Amino acid sequence: MRKLVIVKNIFNRSHQLQNLLPSLASSRFLSSNSVLDSSPSASPMAPVSLDTINPKVLKCEYAVRGEIVTLAQRLQEELKAKPGSLPFDEIIYCNIGNPQSLGQQPITFFREVLALCDHPSILDKSETQGLFSADAIERAWQILDQIPGRATGAYSHSQGIKGLRDTIAAGIEARDGFPADPNDIFLTDGASPAVHMMMQLLISSENDGILCPIPQYPLYSASIALHGGSLVPYYLDEATGWGLEISNLKKQLEDAKTNGIKVRALVVINPGNPTGQVLGEDNQKEIVEFCKQEGLVLLADEVYQANVYVPEKKFHSFRKISRSMGYGEKDLSLVSFQSVSKGYYGECGKRGGYMEVTGFTPEIREQIYKVASVNLCSNISGQILASLVMSPPKVGEESHESYDAEKDAILSSLARRAKTLEEALNNLEGVTCNKAEGAMYLFPQIRLPEKAIKAAEAAKTAPDAFYCRRLLNSTGVVVVPGSGFGQVPGTWHFRCTILPQEDKIPAIVSRLTEFHKNFMDEYRD
Amino acid sequence: MRKLVIVKNIFNRSHQLQNLLPSLASSRFLSSNSVLDSSPSASPMAPVSLDTINPKVLKCEYAVRGEIVTLAQRLQEELKAKPGSLPFDEIIYCNIGNPQSLGQQPITFFREVLALCDHPSILDKSETQGLFSADAIERAWQILDQIPGRATGAYSHSQGIKGLRDTIAAGIEARDGFPADPNDIFLTDGASPAVHMMMQLLISSENDGILCPIPQYPLYSASIALHGGSLVPYYLDEATGWGLEISNLKKQLEDAKTNGIKVRALVVINPGNPTGQVLGEDNQKEIVEFCKQEGLVLLADEVYQANVYVPEKKFHSFRKISRSMGYGEKDLSLVSFQSVSKGYYGECGKRGGYMEVTGFTPEIREQIYKVASVNLCSNISGQILASLVMSPPKVGEESHESYDAEKDAILSSLARRAKTLEEALNNLEGVTCNKAEGAMYLFPQIRLPEKAIKAAEAAKTAPDAFYCRRLLNSTGVVVVPGSGFGQVPGTWHFRCTILPQEDKIPAIVSRLTEFHKNFMDEYRD
Repeated sequence: MRKLVIVKNIFNRSHQLQNLLPSLASSRFLSSNSVLDSSPSASPMAPVSLDTINPKVLKCEYAVRGEIVTLAQRLQEELKAKPGSLPFDEIIYCNIGNPQSLGQQPITFFREVLALCDHPSILDKSETQGLFSADAIERAWQILDQIPGRATGAYSHSQGIKGLRDTIAAGIEARDGFPADPNDIFLTDGASPAVHMMMQLLISSENDGILCPIPQYPLYSASIALHGGSLVPYYLDEATGWGLEISNLKKQLEDAKTNGIKVRALVVINPGNPTGQVLGEDNQKEIVEFCKQEGLVLLADEVYQANVYVPEKKFHSFRKISRSMGYGEKDLSLVSFQSVSKGYYGECGKRGGYMEVTGFTPEIREQIYKVASVNLCSNISGQILASLVMSPPKVGEESHESYDAEKDAILSSLARRAKTLEEALNNLEGVTCNKAEGAMYLFPQIRLPEKAIKAAEAAKTAPDAFYCRRLLNSTGVVVVPGSGFGQVPGTWHFRCTILPQEDKIPAIVSRLTEFHKNFMDEYRD
Repeated sequence: MRKLVIVKNIFNRSHQLQNLLPSLASSRFLSSNSVLDSSPSASPMAPVSLDTINPKVLKCEYAVRGEIVTLAQRLQEELKAKPGSLPFDEIIYCNIGNPQSLGQQPITFFREVLALCDHPSILDKSETQGLFSADAIERAWQILDQIPGRATGAYSHSQGIKGLRDTIAAGIEARDGFPADPNDIFLTDGASPAVHMMMQLLISSENDGILCPIPQYPLYSASIALHGGSLVPYYLDEATGWGLEISNLKKQLEDAKTNGIKVRALVVINPGNPTGQVLGEDNQKEIVEFCKQEGLVLLADEVYQANVYVPEKKFHSFRKISRSMGYGEKDLSLVSFQSVSKGYYGECGKRGGYMEVTGFTPEIREQIYKVASVNLCSNISGQILASLVMSPPKVGEESHESYDAEKDAILSSLARRAKTLEEALNNLEGVTCNKAEGAMYLFPQIRLPEKAIKAAEAAKTAPDAFYCRRLLNSTGVVVVPGSGFGQVPGTWHFRCTILPQEDKIPAIVSRLTEFHKNFMDEYRD
């Protein structure tokens, strides 16, 4: 029960929780509708029911692919079957950071290298010179030489191919100015499995707590739920651009202790998801100091490190910050997560990423390695891509200019989209929206009229979910209710990506503006 | 404790367990040697120690990448640094089913399609015609058309791209003669994550048991340990070619019940790993009947479905068997696991695979989908490859002939290697080895002299691990001790893959024969 007490404060009247609880309570009802029960004599013992499966699975929620997305998929099918039957022509998915699904093109150099590594026998054919850039061919050879037997179809070392980890360590060093060790790198199928691996290691029971920002990316709440731990919230301060107050961290840590929860780790997402802020250096130093003092593992989600849109802010890794404070291996247990899915590359489908694990004893490292080895290794294309992302074409190489142009076009367009959407949101009645300094999202607050809140209650849904559902039904725009991320009780938000292609942004703004006006007219107190 | 009682009967004096237990008992000793404690004043609270991490992680073992492999990697480095310093020139990894690491070449058509999907902008260039086969180009277009927006860099549906699932369902139907539903397919990064997903769903506590064959592939024991369940063993009968006796299944199920364990599922590996047997149809029917009667989920590991080497046996999927018995969705909860890592394709590094989930209620399916969605999706190249494996070039297509030749060359060579190694093993004093009818392994029994067992005891290791270590140190051949897979108490085995390239087999045979003779001479009672 202890855990629920904590969680229910965060996910205020979450529609997910509301949907979950009745299904837990009335599982007999559910199973009486089930396929298995439709012919009860055929199977006297249904092997699996909601009563018998792992309750941690039941408890887990993942809003970015939740209920609203299922509705969107249904509407999309309707549109396909009956064009013109809905008040919009297409569904615009702003629910998830999935840039290439909305038309962003991959970086050419990266794809050239991947294709050549997939089919190395074309590398020395003359036609290949005409199809691929010289440095892509050169890079493919380099990478193949790093792979034992050039076997891109073999399981690799469970931490990933050593030569690729060398490249990544060199990339980290170039970024931070402090040496990095390839043996600290664990290549993973995107950042999610890496986060699960650390949660699996750190959580033994609901008495183990993980400090997470609220709002947070629901991977964290989902993973903590799946591993049976307790999410200990700390609140980001919306009024100061989603600032992180150490005093709030301390208070939440003390509260958790009082409740018998041993806090194991602190999750920091920088740049923020869903909140888009970029932490300042001084704030990061305080966080490092706090983790060191309190003996917490710092889990640094740094997957948006290449997504910073404002000139006054710069990404600094927590590794760089802690090393610049003079702290080494002995002072701080730090895990940094990186992914090929974000940045200007946006290669979500490739499932590449890594975690850099520093400040753990050899015995614990061995346990992390063991867990990694149970899944053998991450996919080799993702591993190659992670090395490319951390070591893109250099000045003087054939692809450098086009690479740079592709990268700049994507990042500057994202910055413009962020600004346009933010301004449009701030123009809406009762809506305030912090700037997206980084990452791929806006997380506006909507002050909903009492009448709308009542209507949501009547519809048995959270007010923000009610709003998002109405928005989807009216405009085809898919956003995720704030209750999926957690928010200060009594406040309502939604998360909207900045990823639709730039030529679609004006239409989104006008649809959103019109919808919001009508909604407020309907429900204004 | 209940769980340990069961497990210790199976993993007889496992060197892994022996290594583990002292480290659990003396964790204070370990932490006093740790990096963190070398300067205790710097960090008064070590955030993570063996005392505080998840004990399920500590308990988990994964022999195919365990101690012996670590030793092999060390020897390999020694050989590199000081050639000629060891009694052999190279390490031959027979510990893991990783064909391409030992020189097996990928199927050309599959790699052509993957390369084209990675870099679609070359598809309509004239040079491409000269480099790629016409049907690979055609297939790449087809696949791209199945992917929304042709975006191979986007997250897909969490079950995998619908069009690829259609192809796989058609492939299953062609294989089995019964229709398959693409909505039953969950594409995964190899079979391992799929197995974990099902264990996560089915296991709530140590009171939940999973019936597993002994010997078993250690993914199962590892996954059950990580999820905190109980492995309930059933013994394959070595004397009858690793036969599966339903009476033994029933007995173990009853024993588990008596111990308060609710058995949730039965794992069957067919063709067998590490045992290489191919189940007969009648035996499969009994298994289906047993699962139906007892209300067990049948977890069918069918990743070696393309690896059958004897003319008298044929692979039949459990799905086909149950459908041929007239059983449908209501009668049996069945999950079939398939992977691109095995078969004649052997694409381990691509991490592709799927599970086909049938006979579950919509509510449970929703929970499986939710767990899949927390990791967003499996890698798209792996998804594409899974569709290719289930739908290779057809008669009349340009690549068909070369594809068939590549496939046959690999499979017939594997059959020859299996036979040669099996005969060589059976020629050794005190060694008996069943035929590898399928899969990629031999699992010989070695009757070790009492003196060798005593020597192993003195060296604080299991007798089979002692043997395998000596084998490695003398010959460079890496095999995995039977204790990593489980075996009848008092018997000793090892698992050896049949994957070294054919021209290396004679040398392996002679090294092994010589080593074994010397070993027996040294220890003969």
